[in-house]
Amino acid sequence: MLNFSFYNPTKILFGQNQIAKISKEISPEARILLTCGGGSIKHNGVYDQVLAALAGRTVLEFSGIEPNPTYETLMEAVRVVREQRIDFLLAVGGGSVIDGTKFIAAAAPFTGEPWDILAKRAPITQAIPLGTVLTLPATGSEMNSGSVVTRRATQDKLAFMHPLVYPRFSVLDPTVTLTLPPRQVGNGVVDAFTHIMEQYLTYPVNAPVQDRFAEGLLLTLIEEGPKALATPEDVAVRANVMWCATLALNGLIGAGVPGDWATHMIGHEITALHGLDHAQTLAIILPAMMNVKRDRKRAKLLQYAARVWEINSGSEDERIDAAIERTRAFFESLGVRTYLRDYGIGAEAVPALLAQLERHQMTALGEHQDIDLATSRRILEQALAA
Amino acid sequence: MLNFSFYNPTKILFGQNQIAKISKEISPEARILLTCGGGSIKHNGVYDQVLAALAGRTVLEFSGIEPNPTYETLMEAVRVVREQRIDFLLAVGGGSVIDGTKFIAAAAPFTGEPWDILAKRAPITQAIPLGTVLTLPATGSEMNSGSVVTRRATQDKLAFMHPLVYPRFSVLDPTVTLTLPPRQVGNGVVDAFTHIMEQYLTYPVNAPVQDRFAEGLLLTLIEEGPKALATPEDVAVRANVMWCATLALNGLIGAGVPGDWATHMIGHEITALHGLDHAQTLAIILPAMMNVKRDRKRAKLLQYAARVWEINSGSEDERIDAAIERTRAFFESLGVRTYLRDYGIGAEAVPALLAQLERHQMTALGEHQDIDLATSRRILEQALAA
Repeated sequence: MLNFSFYNPTKILFGQNQIAKISKEISPEARILLTCGGGSIKHNGVYDQVLAALAGRTVLEFSGIEPNPTYETLMEAVRVVREQRIDFLLAVGGGSVIDGTKFIAAAAPFTGEPWDILAKRAPITQAIPLGTVLTLPATGSEMNSGSVVTRRATQDKLAFMHPLVYPRFSVLDPTVTLTLPPRQVGNGVVDAFTHIMEQYLTYPVNAPVQDRFAEGLLLTLIEEGPKALATPEDVAVRANVMWCATLALNGLIGAGVPGDWATHMIGHEITALHGLDHAQTLAIILPAMMNVKRDRKRAKLLQYAARVWEINSGSEDERIDAAIERTRAFFESLGVRTYLRDYGIGAEAVPALLAQLERHQMTALGEHQDIDLATSRRILEQALAA
Repeated sequence: MLNFSFYNPTKILFGQNQIAKISKEISPEARILLTCGGGSIKHNGVYDQVLAALAGRTVLEFSGIEPNPTYETLMEAVRVVREQRIDFLLAVGGGSVIDGTKFIAAAAPFTGEPWDILAKRAPITQAIPLGTVLTLPATGSEMNSGSVVTRRATQDKLAFMHPLVYPRFSVLDPTVTLTLPPRQVGNGVVDAFTHIMEQYLTYPVNAPVQDRFAEGLLLTLIEEGPKALATPEDVAVRANVMWCATLALNGLIGAGVPGDWATHMIGHEITALHGLDHAQTLAIILPAMMNVKRDRKRAKLLQYAARVWEINSGSEDERIDAAIERTRAFFESLGVRTYLRDYGIGAEAVPALLAQLERHQMTALGEHQDIDLATSRRILEQALAA
């Protein structure tokens, strides 16, 4: 196992009727800004539950944080925070609302151009405290310190991480996910699954606990993910999916092991140029990545085949092929297509995607930093069609 | 899965040479009290590493915290903390030193009789911040908010938990465990294993992630524990054992599932009256507990047999019998005997143990609160000898 530092102070309030508890987690004197997205929380009862929990408190509202939250929108919220002397941010929504709120939290007290937090890794020394009420299990943002923000003007999609933007608390009530559309449910499972794979499918470092935790999450998503679509009213299934998605990216399974993240980096460029959902890009790139990197990932691919899919017969390459196909079939079973062509994207798109990777200095990706532009080209070409 | 709240803000610094980093985790102005046990840290280099890391800081020392730390000793440290205006406690040792230091942290600012924190669950509102350098993987105290303290005068062994006594940081450097005597290594593995079983071997609540995490830790201890004794110089093995022991009791695998803890409660009385090591009492009671409670624990016993020991043939009771025997053999392979008779304790000891349980109101133990004194008697009688 590699040396590591692990720190995660987010308090999780998990289960039905937990939204009512947020009043105890926020100072009574706080001036609260509730941040949210497009309005689904106003139709499914979550908004009403939050306002009921905060009755008598000072609560302002900032809605309209979009999927792949933009710097332009978030800076409007920063202006509200500054003008209204907000001292607590309550993100109510999915990963985009939470990611966006983390940026607001860091940008509001920042002196200078807040874009530099993303573009120049400008250090931050303070942040407005934030909490979250999660409505969409997928990104894990509810229990980590990371945030991804897009600049609309340039379609740059950049990330920052800082301990100051760990949510103070996150409410995970699986009943609020019952009304999600199937596309978001499927996307969420693919997103969580790929987060696990980015930390698991690298090379062995004698970290059996991390491996087994990762495999345990993968197996649970494989069991429960399709059930969330087939029996959408089953709260117990939603609870298991929700807890998997949080644990997939809260730092635990990645502590002491290498990380890959190349699938995410290439996927980000597809979203930026073609507007695909984040999870769609992961479902497209991951199987191609597994195939192209099969030699350097061989030991973990074989372990994945055996322990996650019970593939134990055939040559090594046959087992790896089978594991890749099972992964692809799993994504497809969730309603997430796995080839660029399925989204109307052809070979003519590849040069522009490679140019974006180059512009963002994504020319040495993966756990060995050996995924150069030529390798990314092979991955994208394999991802075009069956 | 059951509703739960999970919060664990302890920062883990894991790996070789991490002790040097503690200076960054403690305020430069802090008046530090280093707490420790019997002196082993002065022979294995840990003490020197800690003092080197804190060069130039104000560091006082309190040594002599014993295994099963006593209120009497800890109150001497409380006096030092108060007189010397200590504002940071650094526990360097195993679970007893860390548990004791948590009590010191809570007792020093407490107004009134600090024993009430344990005996009357008197609420605490402040605690001296503490950090730890762990030397013995076993109890998990380095990443939880619990503490067990014994009153020498009465042999009462009582516990308290409070979020204020989470360590701010804990250093887990597996190299410092290389010089542990085999008895402490074996005890540590049994202790961690039993912590997992107390949270796993109850009844199913549809919590597949918690089950798989628990099974992953058990499997890893089964693989790595004997190696720690057979190849004591292997740092990678020690690292895996150390991380297992911490994750066994940091709240994660117990979140959202029932807990048993009857084995611990009965074991505590054996330590109190007969002075056995904590882990020895667990190795004695757990197999008998599994046998006596086989009906209400049946579903999880069969899952444990199949997933942890790969026992898949035979009748249900045969599989359960086999799983209990494998558990017992595992403990014995670590050098920890599993019957009271092995420690010279006979049937004549049972009434006094039951009287202690009654005196401590331990008359409705286990996940169903159905382990009354008659059941505890059966467990103790089965634990006498093969």
